[in-house]
Amino acid sequence: MKKFLLIPDSFKGTMSSQEICDIMQRAITHNIPGAEIIKIPVADGGEGSVDAFLSALSGERRSVTVSGPFGESVAACYGVVDGGSTAVIEMAACAGLPLVGDHPDPLRATTYGVGELIAHAAKSGCKKIIVGLGGSATNDAGAGAASALGVCFSNAAGETFVPTGGTLERVAHIDLSGLMTELSSVEILTMCDIDNPLFGETGAAHVFAPQKGADEEMVRQLDRGLRHMDEVVRRDLGRDLAGTPGAGAAGGMGFGMLAFLSSKLQMGIETVLDTVRFDELLDGVDLVLTGEGKIDSQSIRGKVVIGVAARTQRAGVPLIAIVGDIGDGAEAAYDRGVSGIFSINRVAVPYREAKLRAHDDLYLTVDNLFHFLGVVHR
Amino acid sequence: MKKFLLIPDSFKGTMSSQEICDIMQRAITHNIPGAEIIKIPVADGGEGSVDAFLSALSGERRSVTVSGPFGESVAACYGVVDGGSTAVIEMAACAGLPLVGDHPDPLRATTYGVGELIAHAAKSGCKKIIVGLGGSATNDAGAGAASALGVCFSNAAGETFVPTGGTLERVAHIDLSGLMTELSSVEILTMCDIDNPLFGETGAAHVFAPQKGADEEMVRQLDRGLRHMDEVVRRDLGRDLAGTPGAGAAGGMGFGMLAFLSSKLQMGIETVLDTVRFDELLDGVDLVLTGEGKIDSQSIRGKVVIGVAARTQRAGVPLIAIVGDIGDGAEAAYDRGVSGIFSINRVAVPYREAKLRAHDDLYLTVDNLFHFLGVVHR
Repeated sequence: MKKFLLIPDSFKGTMSSQEICDIMQRAITHNIPGAEIIKIPVADGGEGSVDAFLSALSGERRSVTVSGPFGESVAACYGVVDGGSTAVIEMAACAGLPLVGDHPDPLRATTYGVGELIAHAAKSGCKKIIVGLGGSATNDAGAGAASALGVCFSNAAGETFVPTGGTLERVAHIDLSGLMTELSSVEILTMCDIDNPLFGETGAAHVFAPQKGADEEMVRQLDRGLRHMDEVVRRDLGRDLAGTPGAGAAGGMGFGMLAFLSSKLQMGIETVLDTVRFDELLDGVDLVLTGEGKIDSQSIRGKVVIGVAARTQRAGVPLIAIVGDIGDGAEAAYDRGVSGIFSINRVAVPYREAKLRAHDDLYLTVDNLFHFLGVVHR
Repeated sequence: MKKFLLIPDSFKGTMSSQEICDIMQRAITHNIPGAEIIKIPVADGGEGSVDAFLSALSGERRSVTVSGPFGESVAACYGVVDGGSTAVIEMAACAGLPLVGDHPDPLRATTYGVGELIAHAAKSGCKKIIVGLGGSATNDAGAGAASALGVCFSNAAGETFVPTGGTLERVAHIDLSGLMTELSSVEILTMCDIDNPLFGETGAAHVFAPQKGADEEMVRQLDRGLRHMDEVVRRDLGRDLAGTPGAGAAGGMGFGMLAFLSSKLQMGIETVLDTVRFDELLDGVDLVLTGEGKIDSQSIRGKVVIGVAARTQRAGVPLIAIVGDIGDGAEAAYDRGVSGIFSINRVAVPYREAKLRAHDDLYLTVDNLFHFLGVVHR
C-alpha cells in the first residue's frame, strides 16, 4: 500500500476537514514515509466551501464588491478553479448571518449580491458555477439573486421590484425573458445538505427563520410569502418545485435556484466528488480514508461517508471511516461500501473531555491503523 | 486468514476472560464462518484460575476436604490437566477472603489447607503443581501450607507448632527435613502478578493486611512477624528471599513458596503460556487476539498483552490487542510485538456508561475489524 486518498468531513465543533486531512497525512507518512497522498477537504456548501475547493483543486480567489444583505456594499470573495472554468460561490459571503450582526431582519434581507457574484463569474467566462447554500440571513426565495441576473418580478400594478422576505406576497408576475444571456451556456449547481421543502411546518420560515431573527408573527408572514411565490411560479413558469428536498434551504434559496436559474440542487459531497473528478482520482489508490463526527444508521442521505462509499465501492477500492462516535446501527454502512469504521475514542470519557484530545486521538488512531496494516501486509 | 488464537485478560469489573473469548469468537465467525479458533481464557492466579486452565486444556476438577482459614473443614476444588500430570490450585479455594465472611482475622488465618491440596495432588501423581496466589485471608508467610507438607516450625522451647500471622514471631527454628518425599520429583510453580517484597512499607502487611481486617496495630505486628520469619529463614535455610518481587504476595505466601517449597514465582501469563504450550499452539495461526481493560506505558511487567506479544513477536505472528482504554504512551507496545491496539470505546461517554455497553461494544469492535480485514485481504 502506498497511495492514499483522504476525504473526511469536518468533525463539527472539533476539527475542520483540512485539519483532519493534515493529521491523517502525518500519521500515514509516519508509517509509510514515501506514501503518495491526495487530500480533499470537504465542505457542505456553507462557510469554508471556497477554501475547501481551492485546497483540493488549484485555483484563485476573486474579490468583488456587491450588495450586502441590506443593499450596502460588501467585498465578497469567490473561488475559481479548473483553469478559470468553474466558480465556487458561498452565498454566505454576501448574504450571510455574520454580516447582519445584531440587527437581523429576514423581512428585508436580500440575496441580490449572490446574483451579482454569479453574474461576475459568468461574465468572466466560467462555464460551471457552484453555489453553496447555508448560513444565510435571508428568506427571499432567491428572488434577490434572480433579480440581479435579469429576472423580472412585478406587482399587481405592473411595477418591477426586488422582492424580499417581507414583500414576496406582492409578487404578481415573474418574467424570465430578461435573464442574462451568458447564463444560457453555464451550468449552475447548488450545494445544499438539508431536505426541507419550501414552506409549511418543515419549511424554510418555520424551521430556520427564528435563527435569523424572526418572531412568530414574522415566521407566519414569511411562510405566506413563500407559499405565494410558489403559486406564482406554478402559474407563470409552469413548474411545481416547492416540495423538492432542499427547496427550503437558505430561506427558500434552494427553490429560487431551481425555479429561476434552472440549477440542480445537489448534496455537497456529490458536488465535491464531481468537481474534483473523484472517480479519476481513485485510479491507483490503495485505500481511501473518510470520516465524520458521528456515523449512525440515521440520516445517511447526504452524509460524506456514505457519498464517498458509493464511489469507492463501485471502483472496488477499500474505504475506512475514521469517526468521532459510532452510533447504533452503523454497521449498515458495511453494505454500502464502508470497509471499516474506527472511532477515535480511546478512553471512556464524556464528549467535553474527548473533544479536547480529539487532535491527538485522531493522530494515534490513524497511526495505529497504519502500523497494524504494515504488519498484516508485510 | 482462517486460524485465530484468542488469549485476552479479563476486563476487570466488566467482562471475564472467558466471556471475552466467546464474544470474540462470535464476531470472528460472523465474518469468517469456517474460522478455526483456539480460545485461552487467562487467569492471573486468583479466583477463576482453575476454570481458565480447565477451559483452555482438557482436564477434570477434583474436590477435597481440607482445612479452611481457621482450621474448619472446607470442600475445596483443584484442577488436573495434561492427562493428570499437572495440577492447578487456587489458594483462595481454602484460604480465601470469601471464606472468612464478616470475621476476618489475619492474625489467626492459615494456609494449611493449601498445603493439603498440594499434598493431595502430589500423592495422586501430579508432576507439576501450579499454585495461584491472590484473594487470601492470611498473613502467615506460607508457614501453614509448609507445615501441612512436613516442614517443621518450632519455638524457643523446641515445641513444634503451626505458625499463623500472629505467632510468626515465636518461630525459633525451621527444619525442612520432614518435607513430604513425593515433592522431590514435583515441579511447583507459583503464579503471582504483584511485585511486593515480604515486609516493610511496600510489603505484605502494610499494603494488603488492611483489606484482610487488620488495624494499624495488627499491621505492625504482622510486619514484625514477617521480618522475623525472614531472619530465621536466612539463618536456618541460608536463603535471602524477602526482597524477591512477589515475596509479599498473599500475606507472604510468595516468600513461603520460595523458601519452604523451592517453588518458582512466575507471572500468571507466563505460567499460562507455558502450561498451554503456547508456542506450539501458534503453529499455523494467522492472527492472535489478546486484550485487557487498559493498556498504557506503565506497569507492563506481568501484563497479559505484553507477555503474549513477546511470544507472538518471536514467532512472527501478528497480534491485535482489544482493550477498554488506551492510555498515554501505549504506542510503546508496538516495539514489543503488538501489531495494533483497538479500543472498544465507540462513543464518548464516561466509564460508568461505557461498562454497561462493553459486551456489545466488544462484539462490534471485533466485528468491524474482521469485516475490514476481509476487505483488505480480499
